[in-house]
Amino acid sequence: MNRIKLVLTLILCLCVLPMKAQSDEAVLKTIYTQALTNGHSYEWLNYLSNQIGSRLSGSLGASKAVTYTKETFEQLGLDKVWLQPVMVPRWVRGTKEYAFIEGVSGKTTTVNICALGGSVATPALGVKAQVVEVKSMEELQALGKEIVHGKIVFFNKPLPAEHINPIEAYNACVHLREQGATEAAKYGAVGIIVRSLTFRMHDLPHTGSMTYNGLPDNERIPAAAISTNDAELLSTMLKLNNNIQFYFKQSCKQLKEVQSYNVIGEIKGSKYPNKYIIVGAHLDSWDLGDGAHDNGAGVVQAMEVLHLLKKLDIKPKHSIRVVLFMNQENGLRGASTYAEAVKQNDENHMFAIESDTGGFSPRGFNFDCNDQAYNQMLSWQGLFEPYLVHSFEKNESEADVKPLKSEHNVVAGLFTDNQRYFDYHHASNDTFETVNKRELELGAATMAALVYLVDKYGIKGTKN
Amino acid sequence: MNRIKLVLTLILCLCVLPMKAQSDEAVLKTIYTQALTNGHSYEWLNYLSNQIGSRLSGSLGASKAVTYTKETFEQLGLDKVWLQPVMVPRWVRGTKEYAFIEGVSGKTTTVNICALGGSVATPALGVKAQVVEVKSMEELQALGKEIVHGKIVFFNKPLPAEHINPIEAYNACVHLREQGATEAAKYGAVGIIVRSLTFRMHDLPHTGSMTYNGLPDNERIPAAAISTNDAELLSTMLKLNNNIQFYFKQSCKQLKEVQSYNVIGEIKGSKYPNKYIIVGAHLDSWDLGDGAHDNGAGVVQAMEVLHLLKKLDIKPKHSIRVVLFMNQENGLRGASTYAEAVKQNDENHMFAIESDTGGFSPRGFNFDCNDQAYNQMLSWQGLFEPYLVHSFEKNESEADVKPLKSEHNVVAGLFTDNQRYFDYHHASNDTFETVNKRELELGAATMAALVYLVDKYGIKGTKN
Repeated sequence: MNRIKLVLTLILCLCVLPMKAQSDEAVLKTIYTQALTNGHSYEWLNYLSNQIGSRLSGSLGASKAVTYTKETFEQLGLDKVWLQPVMVPRWVRGTKEYAFIEGVSGKTTTVNICALGGSVATPALGVKAQVVEVKSMEELQALGKEIVHGKIVFFNKPLPAEHINPIEAYNACVHLREQGATEAAKYGAVGIIVRSLTFRMHDLPHTGSMTYNGLPDNERIPAAAISTNDAELLSTMLKLNNNIQFYFKQSCKQLKEVQSYNVIGEIKGSKYPNKYIIVGAHLDSWDLGDGAHDNGAGVVQAMEVLHLLKKLDIKPKHSIRVVLFMNQENGLRGASTYAEAVKQNDENHMFAIESDTGGFSPRGFNFDCNDQAYNQMLSWQGLFEPYLVHSFEKNESEADVKPLKSEHNVVAGLFTDNQRYFDYHHASNDTFETVNKRELELGAATMAALVYLVDKYGIKGTKN
Repeated sequence: MNRIKLVLTLILCLCVLPMKAQSDEAVLKTIYTQALTNGHSYEWLNYLSNQIGSRLSGSLGASKAVTYTKETFEQLGLDKVWLQPVMVPRWVRGTKEYAFIEGVSGKTTTVNICALGGSVATPALGVKAQVVEVKSMEELQALGKEIVHGKIVFFNKPLPAEHINPIEAYNACVHLREQGATEAAKYGAVGIIVRSLTFRMHDLPHTGSMTYNGLPDNERIPAAAISTNDAELLSTMLKLNNNIQFYFKQSCKQLKEVQSYNVIGEIKGSKYPNKYIIVGAHLDSWDLGDGAHDNGAGVVQAMEVLHLLKKLDIKPKHSIRVVLFMNQENGLRGASTYAEAVKQNDENHMFAIESDTGGFSPRGFNFDCNDQAYNQMLSWQGLFEPYLVHSFEKNESEADVKPLKSEHNVVAGLFTDNQRYFDYHHASNDTFETVNKRELELGAATMAALVYLVDKYGIKGTKN
């Protein structure tokens, strides 16, 4: 009888003392297994994508997403869940854009465009003008006012394919989308058309943010993206006859700022409750698809980190806070509001990680930190090898967590197999169907595993 | 004037002596850049998938693929291109399969099935019987003849999701598809239905090979795969009432063997023409999709290795031979025919690599070799890091190149980000659209880079 009691007590202890005696290898294995067999991220993403849909700042979708994620946090039994008010810009696309190329014979060919986020509308009847095609700001400058005045500037620079990391190719072109209208306006252009920032040759235009850099209202010219297939068509037609005209019409506008929120959920640390580990993603998206990769995936992965910790009964020593930032896409208001509050409350943010490179297979992390901390991160590299997570690079951090960088902390990003990222980025095909369940879950487990290690060992050089 | 001559001579030398003075890092960079900016693999895959389509051994598609790839080799200006005759089995699916679940009330629900490759037909009017559901051969055995006799055995084991490498999950279940009919026949079953070997919950059945292990014709029972969604449905209905019946009808048959070919293209080595580096893939596919991932991708990547070498004017010291194997899917006749010829001609196959894990981002290689050779491979790991190719594992080789393994040589496989592989594997959605151009090209470049290094340095321990 006593022997049976002993055995029962032992079994009870094993159940009640989860993880206590387990090696890091064993805990990581449990985290990945749990994510792949009992994860919630895919189901949450399905809801976010297919029941709510796109979540542009200030939209009904964004508002629904705030409510949904807050309620989901509450169901996870966290220690604290709250909304942090953020004033956000509200830009609306209006009626679907319309564009055509008009040959010298008068024959028109419809093409696929979409207004860039932040652009003004065209006049109600649209804009029609001759086109000047350039590949760079330098080419635009060289043409000068004489040639550009009264025309539509067509920025047609394909993403340079030789870059291994697609982000680098994107970075080589994104200034044309962001600054093109301001620059073209200087030379008297009446509008700009930017080739979509994707490697893929298809018919979908990809939107994204642009700015007028404070240009007076009457000098602002409308800006749109054109699909890669139609950019090729337009370029070919211009080569055949540069007297052809381009027409486009869009009715987007910037409305008054509205109240929105960052959604925050927290598990209080058992030993260092005032030292924070942040897991972030942005809740807003562009309006064309349902924002499944950008950044629904990041949102549900961040939420899954908390779910996995709860499910595996891992009680963190530090406070783990998931922040779903509002308005990353066109203003970064959520990020700056959050960072401002951290500063005001003098909160110690030891570590922050963001997932914003799509719901693809995880390949590693980017770390923005000092050498001592980086070496500590590198010491864990072997633990991730069984999960094919190899790349531990020093690199700039993602936009939302960047303001949290301090001298001693670590600000990180999940790095994914992002070759397909720009196939969907800011376009109408960024939808749930393009996210693979296992890839999404592996990403969530990868973040949870790093959070587990950071919580267990702390970050060397940071104060308690 | 003399100075100009000197400069011109120098420039000429630089053009004529390509790669000579370049570091391995520089050559690899050139290979990847070329593949990403001027590669042909995607265009070839488009033709193979959309102009030719599926390529089951003995089919018209397979025959067209032989002609197309041979002609393409010839256009590359190789030293030798030839067809190696192979007799292959010819199994045909016949009329599209039809199946339903019949409730006890007589109400029927249509479900999605497909015959397994090699299966016999049902009787002309189909088979209708009660169903016994099992998850393993052991469960089947435990039920025994009394329960199984006269019924349809339903093997319903989901791929175990906890495996990080999907291949391991597949290997845990594939014996049910391959051996299920033979085993069930022992207990008097009238047919088998196997849950499709995919993680994905969808409506598409996934085919694949099965065998009767020489069972006499009159003891062979028909075997089909059922979609994962319908497997779940059937299982649920059985739980509610195990008197329901399952009906299926298929008219597939095994015809007489036919003549087909391995397609082989070769660049003759400048220094060791009798020492071979083999790059392989299989030209046949299943009949449901267009076989873009399995294994159109591998075929065009192998071809691209030759194209890149020619384009970059890299003149190999060893002979580089690309072998497009026929009949990997249901017989491996191409592989055994090729290996037999190698043996007969006493050809020295120093190195062989196969690409057969889908056209996804490359993540590394599997090496089947001795420790000395493996250490040599590991010494090149750093060269591949800029391309996010990290995983250098010792592992079993792919089916087509496995017979080429010898004591001192290296038999390798390209290892890809294969989380999505079984979403498409052997199903009607294995189509061109699901292959990303850059991922395909990166895989081709990765194979070409390894071939370049193996050719430059040889394999230690192999004889010249």
